[in-house]
Amino acid sequence: MAITLYDLAGAESDRRFSPFCWRTRMALAHKGLEVETVPWRFTEKDRLPRPNGGRVPVIVDGGHVVHDSSAIAEYLENRYPDRPSLFVGAAGSALTRFVQNWTETVLQPGVVGFVVLDIHRHIGPQDQTYFRQSREERFRRSLEEVVKDREARLPAFRESLTPLRRTVERQDYLAGSAPAYADYVVFGAFQWARAISDFELLAADDPVAVWRGRMLELFGGLARRSPAYGS
Amino acid sequence: MAITLYDLAGAESDRRFSPFCWRTRMALAHKGLEVETVPWRFTEKDRLPRPNGGRVPVIVDGGHVVHDSSAIAEYLENRYPDRPSLFVGAAGSALTRFVQNWTETVLQPGVVGFVVLDIHRHIGPQDQTYFRQSREERFRRSLEEVVKDREARLPAFRESLTPLRRTVERQDYLAGSAPAYADYVVFGAFQWARAISDFELLAADDPVAVWRGRMLELFGGLARRSPAYGS
Repeated sequence: MAITLYDLAGAESDRRFSPFCWRTRMALAHKGLEVETVPWRFTEKDRLPRPNGGRVPVIVDGGHVVHDSSAIAEYLENRYPDRPSLFVGAAGSALTRFVQNWTETVLQPGVVGFVVLDIHRHIGPQDQTYFRQSREERFRRSLEEVVKDREARLPAFRESLTPLRRTVERQDYLAGSAPAYADYVVFGAFQWARAISDFELLAADDPVAVWRGRMLELFGGLARRSPAYGS
Repeated sequence: MAITLYDLAGAESDRRFSPFCWRTRMALAHKGLEVETVPWRFTEKDRLPRPNGGRVPVIVDGGHVVHDSSAIAEYLENRYPDRPSLFVGAAGSALTRFVQNWTETVLQPGVVGFVVLDIHRHIGPQDQTYFRQSREERFRRSLEEVVKDREARLPAFRESLTPLRRTVERQDYLAGSAPAYADYVVFGAFQWARAISDFELLAADDPVAVWRGRMLELFGGLARRSPAYGS
């Protein structure tokens, strides 16, 4: 029986843009597991299976409900040990945490400052009210103010990618010659931007863009085929 | 027969402060290999065994000369496969590269701006001339100018450690429950500062300082016992 994934959707139900859901989507494909996704919106907290943290991803696998992308990755690794590993060993799992922490404290906070108004633009009306209010509280500014100097911030953002760039210009994937969960974590941030915004985060000849291109092709072009405004 | 390590020294021959040599020193201890270190100064390029890149670390193991800390780590891993692994698997090795690239493009460029004048102060007179000239060319400023606003830069530096902090507050080491080469790479930068400068990079209650304390105790306090100006 396929695993069910509750997956954040935009105004169009097939526009899937959560960086955390993309981690899970890629992890499920890595494990070769069948999935049926359920489009879910920010304001549909009551529609999630329990337990949940009020957000997605949430998966249902047989009788098991698992929420939080990191918990889901660990669950899949333990539940399906004979499938390709997401972490490739204990040190792989521990070091993936460093990549994840870099993604969540450097990369994603950078990305949101470019795309947050485009997110607002491409979600349904009921979600727009919730999204604007919660994000403007977090930023203490209007969404328009957050993005208004984004062109000027682009060089510093690209500079902040140096550790990633230097890694993927010397090896095909963060995890080496084949991708693993660390790649999916970082990729989630780029797929988030690509799905919801036409703002070009990367120069075409950036080794990070070349790596992203490899990621888009994985699993039969799973991420490439998903609706996107970006290239 | 013990491995010989050419190790950067200050004015006092037992003050060892190269971040790259510390990676190798810790890696040798991790492998349980005996080492004899040879104090070496910046201006003694002719004293290094060949081949070399004009810098340390260089090791001599039987008839083999290996230079460059990354090449040495790979050499040790391949030459001594039955000893504890430095990388713990292929993904561990690949992900260690990301940690190393972060260390070399974020952490070490941050650290040098605090300690570069202290390095100059604590190396021999013949090295001082070389060091000042080469570093002032690199920075395009005098060493005094580089460090003069270091107190003001400290909050941003500590903020830049967020991915590291978040990782080591949730697990004992970057590599998980036991240290591995990724830990030695990051630790080298802190040991560099500690050996050569009394400038306090970390607040005492910073989880990074707690992790550093664990690193100092490894291998019978190998790093703790080494001459240092810092705590």
